Amino acid sequence: MQETTAPPDAAAYTPTDRTVPTRSAERASYDKPLVHAILDEGYVCHLGFVRDGAPVVLPTLYGRVGDRLYVHGSTGSRPLRMTGTADPGLPVCLTVTHVDGLVLARSAFHHSINYRSVVVHGVARDVTDPDEKCAALDALVDHVVPGRAADSRPANRKELAATAVIYLDLDEVSAKLRTGGVNDEPEDLDLPHWAGVVPLRKGYGTPLPDADLPPGTALPAYLTPER
Amino acid sequence: MQETTAPPDAAAYTPTDRTVPTRSAERASYDKPLVHAILDEGYVCHLGFVRDGAPVVLPTLYGRVGDRLYVHGSTGSRPLRMTGTADPGLPVCLTVTHVDGLVLARSAFHHSINYRSVVVHGVARDVTDPDEKCAALDALVDHVVPGRAADSRPANRKELAATAVIYLDLDEVSAKLRTGGVNDEPEDLDLPHWAGVVPLRKGYGTPLPDADLPPGTALPAYLTPER
Repeated sequence: MQETTAPPDAAAYTPTDRTVPTRSAERASYDKPLVHAILDEGYVCHLGFVRDGAPVVLPTLYGRVGDRLYVHGSTGSRPLRMTGTADPGLPVCLTVTHVDGLVLARSAFHHSINYRSVVVHGVARDVTDPDEKCAALDALVDHVVPGRAADSRPANRKELAATAVIYLDLDEVSAKLRTGGVNDEPEDLDLPHWAGVVPLRKGYGTPLPDADLPPGTALPAYLTPER
Repeated sequence: MQETTAPPDAAAYTPTDRTVPTRSAERASYDKPLVHAILDEGYVCHLGFVRDGAPVVLPTLYGRVGDRLYVHGSTGSRPLRMTGTADPGLPVCLTVTHVDGLVLARSAFHHSINYRSVVVHGVARDVTDPDEKCAALDALVDHVVPGRAADSRPANRKELAATAVIYLDLDEVSAKLRTGGVNDEPEDLDLPHWAGVVPLRKGYGTPLPDADLPPGTALPAYLTPER
């Protein structure tokens, strides 16, 4: 795993005013392996930026190499165009969230969800180095299905020219998570309502092969029905 | 279903500069039933706002009543506090995304995901009417598990006082979605890479009852292992 410049504590991010939550601070974490694991499990991030003074939040694919995140898109897409023309870059907030379970308490007030999220604050900049751009595109494909980049045709010159890639370094970043069961008030325990946690299903369903695949084409090992 | 003021076309939202995408405009929709269905299927939204000139994107629960969305939280949480002190409200962007499947093309370039998303632009304001606040809290609980609000203890006075609720009207809103199969280039069809769509599993896993439930407590009908 490639790492960029080593921070004072290589195993944790340094909290800042923006990454210390105002509420439920006990749910926050700055642990690098945890942050990376949450990021690596996601499919889309929600990328926030400011346009004409108002917030915009768009879902988009992303990839990670060490302490650097990559987002790609058409050279015509708004945040990528804005990054290319912003100096020294576009202030962004990139958030990834997993909903793991529904927490049903006896009281409406204590209903919650079990989740894991990562929020990254920073400045997005264009990737201009051609080798870094190719590596970033591999990371984006491998982020969706690990191992897939090596089992697909790499982008050709025309496709590379049509694709913009921006990066955002993991520096001002935190994870926040809720795990565990129901936290009802003691006086509510005898109420007649079912209480507990409903986990949400995860993983792959049955892959649907493209109609143009030769009959009998085997499913690659990296695509198992469950993961 | 409660509806607010009727727009010119009650079945569709009116596109604006902010809701017409710069790319893949054919994937955009302003159809109300579609927008509502995408919103109703989500668990968390990603709420974007601007703080000190920089974007912030936080995951949070939400509920819908007609053309109005509600977000709640502690009265101490940042976006809710900011909404309460902003006049005439806090500019926000609220986004909900479902990832339905992974699209594996023969070329790296044509990899994609099947998704459905809704982006709402607007101004969030405090809910001050006590009846609307209670109805909003019911909508928030029923959003997580339909039917659950009636099967739990409603918030008491102290809990209501500790909870802030803000609303955002569905007005400047669009859906965007990708469905279907792989779109490879014709000249790539003979490449030896597996291609197709990998659906992602959805729905409930096996509910985990709270340890303090009386033995033999039946699972409510609204919680089936699959939905």
